[in-house]
This record gives sequence, structure tokens and C-alpha cells, in this order.
Amino acid sequence: MIAIDYEELKISVNILNTTPTHRLPVELTERKGLGHPDYIADAAAEASSVALSKYYLERFGVILHHNVDKVLVVGGQSNPVFGGGEVLHPIYVIVAGRATEFVNVGGSLVRIPIGTIIVSAVKEWIKRNFRFLDPDRHVVVDYMIRSGSADLVATYEAGAKSVPLANDTSFGVGFAPLTSLERLVVSIEKELNSPRFKNELPEVGEDIKVMGMRTGSKIRVTIAAALISHLIPDPDHYISVKEEIKNRMLDLAVKIAPGFDVEIDVNTADNPKLGAFYLTVTGTSAEHGDDGATGRGNRACGLITPMRRMSLEATAGKNPVSHVGKLYNVLAYRIAEKIVKEIPKVQEAYVELLSQIGKPITKPQIASISLLLENPAEAESARRYAEAIAREEISKITSLTDLIVKEQVQLF
Amino acid sequence: MIAIDYEELKISVNILNTTPTHRLPVELTERKGLGHPDYIADAAAEASSVALSKYYLERFGVILHHNVDKVLVVGGQSNPVFGGGEVLHPIYVIVAGRATEFVNVGGSLVRIPIGTIIVSAVKEWIKRNFRFLDPDRHVVVDYMIRSGSADLVATYEAGAKSVPLANDTSFGVGFAPLTSLERLVVSIEKELNSPRFKNELPEVGEDIKVMGMRTGSKIRVTIAAALISHLIPDPDHYISVKEEIKNRMLDLAVKIAPGFDVEIDVNTADNPKLGAFYLTVTGTSAEHGDDGATGRGNRACGLITPMRRMSLEATAGKNPVSHVGKLYNVLAYRIAEKIVKEIPKVQEAYVELLSQIGKPITKPQIASISLLLENPAEAESARRYAEAIAREEISKITSLTDLIVKEQVQLF
Amino acid sequence: MIAIDYEELKISVNILNTTPTHRLPVELTERKGLGHPDYIADAAAEASSVALSKYYLERFGVILHHNVDKVLVVGGQSNPVFGGGEVLHPIYVIVAGRATEFVNVGGSLVRIPIGTIIVSAVKEWIKRNFRFLDPDRHVVVDYMIRSGSADLVATYEAGAKSVPLANDTSFGVGFAPLTSLERLVVSIEKELNSPRFKNELPEVGEDIKVMGMRTGSKIRVTIAAALISHLIPDPDHYISVKEEIKNRMLDLAVKIAPGFDVEIDVNTADNPKLGAFYLTVTGTSAEHGDDGATGRGNRACGLITPMRRMSLEATAGKNPVSHVGKLYNVLAYRIAEKIVKEIPKVQEAYVELLSQIGKPITKPQIASISLLLENPAEAESARRYAEAIAREEISKITSLTDLIVKEQVQLF
Amino acid sequence: MIAIDYEELKISVNILNTTPTHRLPVELTERKGLGHPDYIADAAAEASSVALSKYYLERFGVILHHNVDKVLVVGGQSNPVFGGGEVLHPIYVIVAGRATEFVNVGGSLVRIPIGTIIVSAVKEWIKRNFRFLDPDRHVVVDYMIRSGSADLVATYEAGAKSVPLANDTSFGVGFAPLTSLERLVVSIEKELNSPRFKNELPEVGEDIKVMGMRTGSKIRVTIAAALISHLIPDPDHYISVKEEIKNRMLDLAVKIAPGFDVEIDVNTADNPKLGAFYLTVTGTSAEHGDDGATGRGNRACGLITPMRRMSLEATAGKNPVSHVGKLYNVLAYRIAEKIVKEIPKVQEAYVELLSQIGKPITKPQIASISLLLENPAEAESARRYAEAIAREEISKITSLTDLIVKEQVQLF
Repeated sequence: MIAIDYEELKISVNILNTTPTHRLPVELTERKGLGHPDYIADAAAEASSVALSKYYLERFGVILHHNVDKVLVVGGQSNPVFGGGEVLHPIYVIVAGRATEFVNVGGSLVRIPIGTIIVSAVKEWIKRNFRFLDPDRHVVVDYMIRSGSADLVATYEAGAKSVPLANDTSFGVGFAPLTSLERLVVSIEKELNSPRFKNELPEVGEDIKVMGMRTGSKIRVTIAAALISHLIPDPDHYISVKEEIKNRMLDLAVKIAPGFDVEIDVNTADNPKLGAFYLTVTGTSAEHGDDGATGRGNRACGLITPMRRMSLEATAGKNPVSHVGKLYNVLAYRIAEKIVKEIPKVQEAYVELLSQIGKPITKPQIASISLLLENPAEAESARRYAEAIAREEISKITSLTDLIVKEQVQLF
Repeated sequence: MIAIDYEELKISVNILNTTPTHRLPVELTERKGLGHPDYIADAAAEASSVALSKYYLERFGVILHHNVDKVLVVGGQSNPVFGGGEVLHPIYVIVAGRATEFVNVGGSLVRIPIGTIIVSAVKEWIKRNFRFLDPDRHVVVDYMIRSGSADLVATYEAGAKSVPLANDTSFGVGFAPLTSLERLVVSIEKELNSPRFKNELPEVGEDIKVMGMRTGSKIRVTIAAALISHLIPDPDHYISVKEEIKNRMLDLAVKIAPGFDVEIDVNTADNPKLGAFYLTVTGTSAEHGDDGATGRGNRACGLITPMRRMSLEATAGKNPVSHVGKLYNVLAYRIAEKIVKEIPKVQEAYVELLSQIGKPITKPQIASISLLLENPAEAESARRYAEAIAREEISKITSLTDLIVKEQVQLF
Repeated sequence: MIAIDYEELKISVNILNTTPTHRLPVELTERKGLGHPDYIADAAAEASSVALSKYYLERFGVILHHNVDKVLVVGGQSNPVFGGGEVLHPIYVIVAGRATEFVNVGGSLVRIPIGTIIVSAVKEWIKRNFRFLDPDRHVVVDYMIRSGSADLVATYEAGAKSVPLANDTSFGVGFAPLTSLERLVVSIEKELNSPRFKNELPEVGEDIKVMGMRTGSKIRVTIAAALISHLIPDPDHYISVKEEIKNRMLDLAVKIAPGFDVEIDVNTADNPKLGAFYLTVTGTSAEHGDDGATGRGNRACGLITPMRRMSLEATAGKNPVSHVGKLYNVLAYRIAEKIVKEIPKVQEAYVELLSQIGKPITKPQIASISLLLENPAEAESARRYAEAIAREEISKITSLTDLIVKEQVQLF
Repeated sequence: MIAIDYEELKISVNILNTTPTHRLPVELTERKGLGHPDYIADAAAEASSVALSKYYLERFGVILHHNVDKVLVVGGQSNPVFGGGEVLHPIYVIVAGRATEFVNVGGSLVRIPIGTIIVSAVKEWIKRNFRFLDPDRHVVVDYMIRSGSADLVATYEAGAKSVPLANDTSFGVGFAPLTSLERLVVSIEKELNSPRFKNELPEVGEDIKVMGMRTGSKIRVTIAAALISHLIPDPDHYISVKEEIKNRMLDLAVKIAPGFDVEIDVNTADNPKLGAFYLTVTGTSAEHGDDGATGRGNRACGLITPMRRMSLEATAGKNPVSHVGKLYNVLAYRIAEKIVKEIPKVQEAYVELLSQIGKPITKPQIASISLLLENPAEAESARRYAEAIAREEISKITSLTDLIVKEQVQLF
């Protein structure tokens, strides 16, 4: 271990002497896709944060304090049937958190249209991402936002001039690269929710959950895909859509995970004899009783990775200026990715960052890096290189804010 | 790797060739204590599930379907001042989920008092666990519960007769043992929230968050403890309480983590010059803007462990009969604990369980066990022993249900 | 007095020996117009009832039980400024009540999409009636509806075959004709909210409240009209719009109330020096703190008439089949109107109907009619004629249901 | 008619040449008692206003602006059975309106604990007035209050120094005396809800609605009384309680309305053959689907009087300082009562008061008084006397504020 206190910045780089993930005998990973209730909750939180950030920036030149990282999606009730169906009770989305509502501009208070911003942002996200979920008829979007006190505003402006101060003591965790299994699971969901695929097989809804397990060189992928009831006239059609999904995803697997023996199951809970099919009116299981909450879905790498180091912080909805629960997680993945990209001998990299409340976000309590090397002999140079990458990336952390507001960073 | 398909039960035991956690150069862990908004959300969810389970058991002899694992705690507003203060706006608790509301008993529908059960359960939990948070004046407890369909009830009864069927495809993850750092972090929170401690230092509120970092043999613990405003007349008293916490916890650290160089910081965000103190009227930061959500706090080992394998599933609020997101996480920790207890040569054990929806919960898709051994030569016997333990524990999984309802299992 | 028990129908006709309203020394009346928060609450309730009725009719051939006559409109927050402004927090509309959600059709339960019906109905009403209030961005439409029990459905069907049974013991009250003052107050609001007027003077919002007072031959009308902020660049423009309203309404008064000395005041609470103007972003005061509730606005004659006999029952939102609180009020006005129209010697007619719960709605406990005659000598023939009219109208009460569902009856 | 403009105060006194109400052939009146959902809504609104007023007075010496006159009571769900039963879903009470939340005291903002005040006030009212409705288990009390702007506070203080200014253009209406029918209806409800009666016949719940009809000298009173299920073991007991109510109320009628032929019906919708009884677990029909709203129940005389002049303004929940919708209604009844008490020759008196927004509340636009005299010859002296009474009472209007806050004025 090397602990370097460089201008108060402590970076620890450690060489891990262990088996890389892709060679472990068992590997598990999961992705909750676009229409999954937890994904909706994350997306609603982040859409709210982005909209608030843009509004603040446009009017005041800075992103004011907010944290809307607690969204609850309460499932509705629906009645899907082959060839039709309807929503009986709308989905209920509650955006909870805090946002600066009053800004002192030259002595007079300016009010921010918090409510309109949040309600519109959530609805617009739904409109952009669903084909059959109508945010105005099938969803009630509500919010419970407390405004920051006048003091908060002042403090904020003070901090905004220089490097923002960490708002909390919390950590960010990241790793790289993804294994074949992980890339396959991400790719399957993204493919199934791509415009091209939706165009060719519109029966496939947006709510797609992909569970991947690898044992040795055998991969088993379980896909739960909500199908669209009004586009599927009967059970035969339903079964043919499932077959099509399976076949296309097997084709994809050949490209993404060559050399593996891949098995794909779709909607395994179906039971045609009992009339059990995974049909939805709108494309999401949230329409009938499935609830969602921010922070319960994918990490910033797009996956849930129970066998990897992981943070529990929700990245979605937190302000992208000073909230370390957001920035440090994004940053940790970035550092890990850059390390494995730039240092060829590194097989795997893990990064943990721990903030200290009230200190500049460029000064974590610690940045801990762990490396798996192909050749232990190259440890020393890898260490130095990795540390240099981390130091540089940490120093540029404030540039993430802009990328996040422009929605150019994957958060979940 | 050994993959054993024993009566359809696939158990994989793998020997990990890596550094045990307690010898890693850097270690991070965190516990969100009793009064933390996320803990309240977990506790409200679980109190609701336990109360429903007891009601169902008493009336029908079985625990009927429910899943109330999405609780949102929306922070209130308060006005704490030295020697006083008041709650301005109550905390808002919304319990979301599903629960069987109608039961067909001999042809006639019996209705379950879902609302009264849940509201009472949450309020009683608060009454039992807080001294200054009055659930009837400082909290609005609401719920958004959809009842299961009549079919669900029927299916449920069918399943209840034999081994329950997994309600989902999801995984449970556990490990053992805790490191010194982890035990210290848990112990500090439990000590600070113990009746004895509260008796001696009543100024310490229930909302305690403990962040632990170890670098080599140095441990740094950061405690955020909400202090009770009406018991603290002035800043001097406040500072003396902080000192007392620090000193007592240092004494505790000598017992729990001997041989480490321990530093403890309390309420590091305080800034007396700016009048910034961590004061609360009720003992929880939820009284002023801090929100919470189920599943965002501690894992079943009582900690958030970013550098360990971890599940994202919330254990709280799920039904303890068929919900693998609850049972498999509890079980994974139990298996790991039993392995390290009964097989002395095992330094660390990790367990992952993956369910398959619709199959008996005694038949996971896979049970994956990873062991760190002191002596690699003993791998074979350790494997066999560990596998036997796993097989036995999995076969007894249904006994967990009763323990959970009796609140004898740590879930968060 | 004559009390006639005709086939159990007791009709009392009484000759009032008093001064007709238009000759009283003082007269007061008020109309809350289209965009007033209480009107919105009435309209949201009625739109919900009509939409439910149509859905029930279309699917089942009968209007099933419902009663959604408790709508709460919680005012939002806005920030109107000359030439612009925005909604800060949306208006919150909660539709409360009961509606049949499950229908037993040949042994299987059919579910009604209560939620979608109500949310859509309220939003569509807003879209049809406002130009600048966007139901999807400026309003959160929620509902709290309990479904009727299975028994209710059955009972209902039984009743639907013949004359419906009164659902409650309550009364309906009506009178005719309107006085000049009353007609003027109604006409002013309807004119200001007419498409033609809006076309010519778009600055005038939908929230118009008209208060009328007559002392002797002098009429004073106070109009509170929400003006649209983004259409009004400055105070001068604002004042010119007020002048225009005043002048046009004085012209109208000449036609509606010739022979009266009419004074018209517009937005009397304005105080230009203090910057107080009645500006709104959306056209309704509900956008900034003004709340509304069903049943707190106009009676079925379109007015609040404190010096006339009046029912407190809300007509809006009640089911149009068996709810006497709706039907008897509409019917009472109809009978009164027919009496004054067909019996020229009747100067004024008052009608009260009292139902008895569980009895056919064609059998009120009493129908009480009071007549003011120009010539007392004609009492006997007037009585007989009035009674005959009442008897006929009561016997045709079930025809009102259809008219109400087609929105051809004024309810508020 | 005499129109007197006395110091800007216009009082019109008119002699009505008509039949007094008690001699009309038909008379109808109704009282919604203590536990009726509309009464609960009124009481919750007023309890909130009184609690706010007291808090403001205690801290600031003046009652600050508030208006919480829109309460929605959403019925719960319950399951009453002979000898038992339970609440399934709590009643939901939402207090909507506005209240001053920030007060500028010497340059620093003091916050008012609006939420705690309102929630506590409503719950305490329930505790004081119900025996079996537990506000903490059977009711969810919520609120949607917007705070007044900082300007409002300032304006208010300015007004508080002298006579308050009318906050709106609205009217108050009152009359006196009550007829025998009216007194009987009020007396029956008050008797049934008296501590003595509850002590003797505890089976009678708090939700009592009394409908009274008089035709000639025949009075028919229909009582709907919610009975308490757990105190009534079987239908026989139920029927005996109904008999007891009937007999006792007939005794009361002999005292209150001697000389009338009184018939009393209790719970006429009961149908023992179909198992239909009016049973409740808690004493109010709000426990099972019956909703309530402020302003939909009794007028300030304690009755709904469809055949009398009546205001639609809710008195409950409005601030008792400047809200004419509250003060003018109370005052109108007071003036009418004083007139009939002090001027023996006046048979009936009606009073209407119309405010003008922004003017002192002691200066209504008009005070209109109508008198029925036994002897028309005494008109002139009656007029002068009545006018003097009105003038004096109007000048003392600010004294009502204190009486209202002390709950010494009947409002509904």
C-alpha cells in the first residue's frame, strides 16, 4: 500500500492479489430497464434535478441547492387483456426532497416555479421514453418539496464562487471493466429498448428486467419483458413475440459474449394454462401494483452488481454541484475506466472515494484504488500511473457538473 | 469450483485466493442508526409487515400475501433552539405496497383492516423507539396500499400448504465475519442508542450515523449525532455532550477494536461561529427536511459495506414467506456466519443465492459460496463442510419466517 | 292551504301574501363564474359524474351508483407580473366520493377504470373551458374514491328496473322567475365568459365573480375579474381593460335591466399605488391560494340568493338517477319556472320537495308550493293549475337523468 | 323603506307584510349533528382557526391572517357488526387554506408551527367530542396550507391597529326567532349528544342528523342516529335503543313544541330482513364512505333553513378579525335576535349585511333589516328601534372576535 498525502489529498493504491471477476466460478448481475418502476423513480428524480439545474443556471448563472433523490412510484391498477385493456387507476409519482425556492436578487425575493418545473420534467421524461404510457391520463405526478431557508441560499452562493464544499460524508464506488456477462446484460436491455427494435417488434414494452448468471462458461439470462396487450391479439402471438425476443437476443449474445454457452429465458413466470401472461396496457408493470423508489435500481455502471464493490447512494436526483453521493460515484467509475483503458496491464480496477463534509469536493478524506494486474512485477509503475490518473480526475471533478446537466453521463 | 446438483439444488463452492477484508489497506463502512430517516423508512416498512403477518396468522393461520417495502419518509420542518424549539411541519410517512385485503372464508369475503393495522404499527414503532418524537403530533402516517386480486389469495393458499414458491427472480448476498472496523461501527451506534446510555446522556438523539474508515491500523470514525435541543441550554453544554460522546466511544473502541489507533470525530459539520450546531427537537433529522426511503440504509448485517459483496434488495417490508428478496438475504448471512463459526480454517465466507420465480424457495437457481482459507491445503474438506451447511440451512429456510415475525432476526 | 294526497303524493299549495322580491327595498345576489375556485370544484365534480354515467351506460346500459360531490380545489402559487409571470406551484384538485368499481357480469367481476375516467374528465373540462390554464402543467388532479360494496351493485340493479328509490332524506328548493337584478348578474358573467367577448377582450380571465345589490331602483354591481398578466403589458393597459369591461357591462345593463340606475365597479380592491392589481397567469385566482369546494357556489338557478329560499345541497357530482339532493333541486326550479310561465297571474313561485329515503323518487314526503299572485281572487284556479304542473313534473322526474348526462341542465 | 346614511353607514329597515314562518302551511328544517361528516369538517376548520388565533395572540398580541375554511373529510371504510367490528381504513381529514407562517419580528423571521398547531387542534377536537373515534388510529389528519406572503403580514399589522378592513365582498344573513319546529330539531340533536344522555344510552353515536317537517300543526321528525356496534349485541337490542330514542324525544317534544302533533321516526332506512341497520364502530358515518366538507352543514343558527333567508358562506375556519363571511353572519343573527328580544311587537326579523372589500368592517355597503310586525301601526317606532340596535351592534363588531376565539359563539 502507498498512502500519498499530496496537497491534503490522500490516495491509496493497492494491488489486489485475487481472481478477476470474469474468471470467478459464478457471476451474477442484473439490469432494471427503462420502464421498470425503480428506473422510473430514478429517471423522475434525475429529470427533476436536471430541469431545476437548467432553470437555476439560466436565471442566476449558478445551480442552486437542491436534492430530489427520493421519488416514490406507487403502482396503479390496470386490466390488460389480449387485444386491449385499460388503466383503472393511474400510477402515482411523488417527488420528495428539497430545492431552493427563494433567491435574494438585489434585496428582493425571486420565487422559483419549483412545482411547474418538477411536474413538467417528469411528464416530459415519460413522454419521451414511453409510447403507450400517457403521463396526463395514466399518471398523477405530485411532489413534496421543502424549500431551503434563506441562509442556505447565501451559503450556497459563497461556495459557488470556488470549489464547492462536500454536502455530506459519504462515499463513491466504481470499477472497470465490465465482464462479458455484464456487457451482455446491459446490451440486451438497451437493444430491446432501442428505437430500431421497438420499430420492428413494437409489442415489447419498456419495462425490461434482465438477470444474468454465469457459471463457468455457461451464461443464463432471464429476461422479464412487459408486452403490450393491445398489440397482441392472442396467446399464439404472445408466444411468437417471446420466441422472437429470445432468438434475437441469442444473436446479440454471439457478438457480445462470444465463446460462452448462452441460454436465454423470457418471462419465465408465464403459465398459459392458468392464463398467466406478462401483459401490460402501457409497457410498465408500475401500471398494476409494482412500486418503485429512487436508488433501488442500477448503479452508475448501469447494473446491479452484488458480487462487486458497490455504493448504496442514489446518484439520481442529487444536485450535480456539491452532492458527493452523486459526483463521487460517477467519478469513481470514470477513474476506474480510465485506469483500465490507459494502463493495459491492469485487469480490473476498483475505486472508492470518501468525502468529508464541509471540505472542498476536490479533497476527499481518501481515494482508495485497488488494481488487479496480469503481472505483479509491474505493480510499481501501475501504482504511479493509477495515482496520477486519480489525481487528475479528482482535480477536474467540477467539470462533471456540466456533463451531468447535459445528460451526457450514465447515472443508472 | 465444484458445482453440485443435489436434488436440483446447485451449490457452487469456490476458494478465493485473495486478501481478507481486515487486511486490505483501506476499509470503509457505515451504519445509519435508529433515528436516521432511511432507518425509519425501513422500520416502518418492517413494522407494517410484521403487524400484517401477525394479523393474518391470528385470523387465518397463514401469512397472506403482502409486500410493503416502499416507504417514503418526507422530512418535516422544525425550529430547534438551545433550550427549546418546536416542530413546524410534521414528518410525512407514506407506506406504499400491496397487501391482501379480502379473504374468501367459506364463500363470504372477510375484509382485513389494512389501514388501521399499518397506521398503528408505524406509530407504535415510533412510540417504542423515540423519546421526543410524538407520532400523533409530529408525524402524519399515511399509506397507499393496493389490495391483491381475489386470484392472488387463492394462489397463495395453494402455495401455503407446501414450500412457498419464489415470488421473483432476485438474489441474496451475505458474508461473515465482520471486521474489527465493522464491529466497532455497529457497536458505537447500538451503544449510543442503548437505554442505559440514553439514561446517562439523554441529550443524545436517536438519529446517529456512523461512518468508519480504516487505513492500515488507523481507524477514523465520524459520528453524526442529532442532539436534543430542549435538553441543551447553550453551546457550552452542547460541546460538553460532544466531548462526552467522543470519550465514551473511545473507551468502547479500546474493547471492540484493540490494537488500532482510533480517532473519533463527532458532528464535524458544526460551526459555532456561524451558529451551526446539529440540534433537533425530536431526535431525528427527518424533522427538518431530511427524507428517507426503504432499502437505502443498512443491509441485513446492520451495515452498508461498499467494499463487500452486497445486495440492493430491501429486506424490510417484504413478506417473510415467499419473498426471496428478504429471505435469501437473511439466509445468505446466516450461512456465511455458520460457515465461519463451524469451520475454523475459514477466514471469510461469501454467499450468494439466486432464486427462480415460481420455483420452491428451497430450490434456488444457484447457491454460490466463496471461502478464504488460512491454509489452501484444507480446501477440499472446507468445501464439503460449507456445502453441507448451505444445504441444511437452505432446507430449513421456512423456519426463518417465524423468527422474522417474532422480530428475532436483524434485517437492517 | 290545500294538502292533496294523490296516490301517496302530498302536494301543498299555499298563497303567499307578501311583497315580490323585485319590489323589496333591498335585494342581494351573487354569481361565482366559470373560473372561480368554487365553480371549478362544482364543475370537476359534475364532469366526473357525467363521465362515470356515460361509461356505465355504454357498458352496462344503466348508470351505476356513484356520488362524487366533494371536490376540494387547493389553490396553487403563482407569480403574475405585467407582461408575463408563471405558475410556481400547481393547483391541487381532489375528487372525493364513491363510485361502483366492480360489476358482476354473469358471475365474473368487471372492473371500471374509475381513476382514468375521473382524471381525464376533470382535465378535459379544464381544457375546454380555460385558455391559459394547462391541466397537465398547472394542475395536479387526484382523487380519493371508495368503491361501493358488491351488495350495493346488486341493490342498484334491482332499483334500476323501476323508479329509483331515494338515496337520502333531503330537500330540493327552487323558485321563479329571476328578478332584473338576478338576470343582470347572471348575464354579466355569461357575457364576460362568452367566446365572442373573449375574442374581443382576451385579457379578461375566466374567474369572474359578480355581486349585485339593488336598493330601490338603484343597482350596484361589483365585478371581480381576474385579468391575464401576459396579455397586459402595464398598468395603463390594465386600467383600460377595466374601463372597457365597465362600459360594455353598462351597455348590457341597459338591455337586461332597463329603468334601473346601474353602477358598475370592477376590481375594487385594486390599489395602483401599492402595486395591487388583480392579475393572474392562468385566469383563475385558484392559481394563488384561493381554495374551492363543491357546493359552495351557485345554486341550480346559477346564483347565490341569500334573500330567497335556497337548498344547501350541492347538485354537482351526485348521481343523476337516485340522488334527490341533485334531482329535487333541479326539479324544484323546473316546476317553479313552468308555473310562472304557464300561469300568468303568478308573480313568483317557490317550490320545496322533501324526499323519504328508500321510497320511489316520484313519491316525495311533500311537495310544497308557494305562490305570489297579482290578484288574490284567482287563488283557487292558480292552486289547481300549479298542483297539476307539479304532479306532472314529478311523475316525469326520471327524464331529468338523461338531460343531466347530456349536460342540458344548468346545475350551478 | 327608509335608507339612512348615518356616518356612511347605510341601514335599510323594511316592514314585511307576510305570514310569519311558524304560520306557513309547510315548514322544513334540518340539523346535522356533532358527528356528521359535514359537522366534523366545520369543526375541524374552526378548531384550526381558534388554535391559530390563540397562538398568534399569545406570541404577537394580534391574530394574524389565516383562512382555513376548506376542510375535506374523506370517509374511511369500516366493518361494524353486532357486538364488535373494526375500522378498516381510516377517515382522511385535509385542512386546506392559508395561514401566516412567517412573522417579521424586529428584522428576523419567526416561523409559526402551522402544521403542529392544525394537526393537534383537529385531533384534540375529536378526542373531546367522540368516545369511540380515536384520532390517532382511525383518522389521518393532513393539511395543505399555503403561507401568506411577507407583504400580507405587514398589511395585516397595519390594519390591526384600528378597525380591520373587510377582506372580501360578501354577505351575512340572519334571522330570529326560531320557530317551534326549529327549536325542536336543534334540541333533539343537542339532547342526543348531551353527556347526560350519552351516559344513560351510550349506544347512541355522535353522528345524528335531524330532519324536521311541519305541515299545519303536525310535525314529523326524522332522526338518523349512528348506533355503536360493539355496545349492541343483537338486532333486538338495536330495536330497543331506537324505541328508547323515539320515546325520549317524544317526551322532549312535549316540552319544546307543546300543542303540536309530533311524530318521530328513527333510522327509517333500516331493513332488518335484509340485515340493514345503521351501525358504526366509531359513532360517525364518516368511518364508512360518507364524506364531508366545510360549509355544507348548519348555518350560524345551528340549522339548515331552506325556507328562510340564508348565507352560503361557511363561518367555520375563517379568521375572526377581518373575514366578513364569518363576522357578518354571526352579527346578522345577533342583530335579529336582539331586535326580537327587545322589540316585543316584532314577530320576525331578517338581517342582511353586505361588506365592501377594503373598507372598515364597521362600514358595510348596506345593512338591510326586514321586520314582521303584529301591528303595522307600530312600524315607525319599530324601525327606529331596530335601526338603533343594528347601528350599535355593528359598531361593536370587533368584540365578536374575542368571543369567537373563546368559543362562546355558535357558528354551525
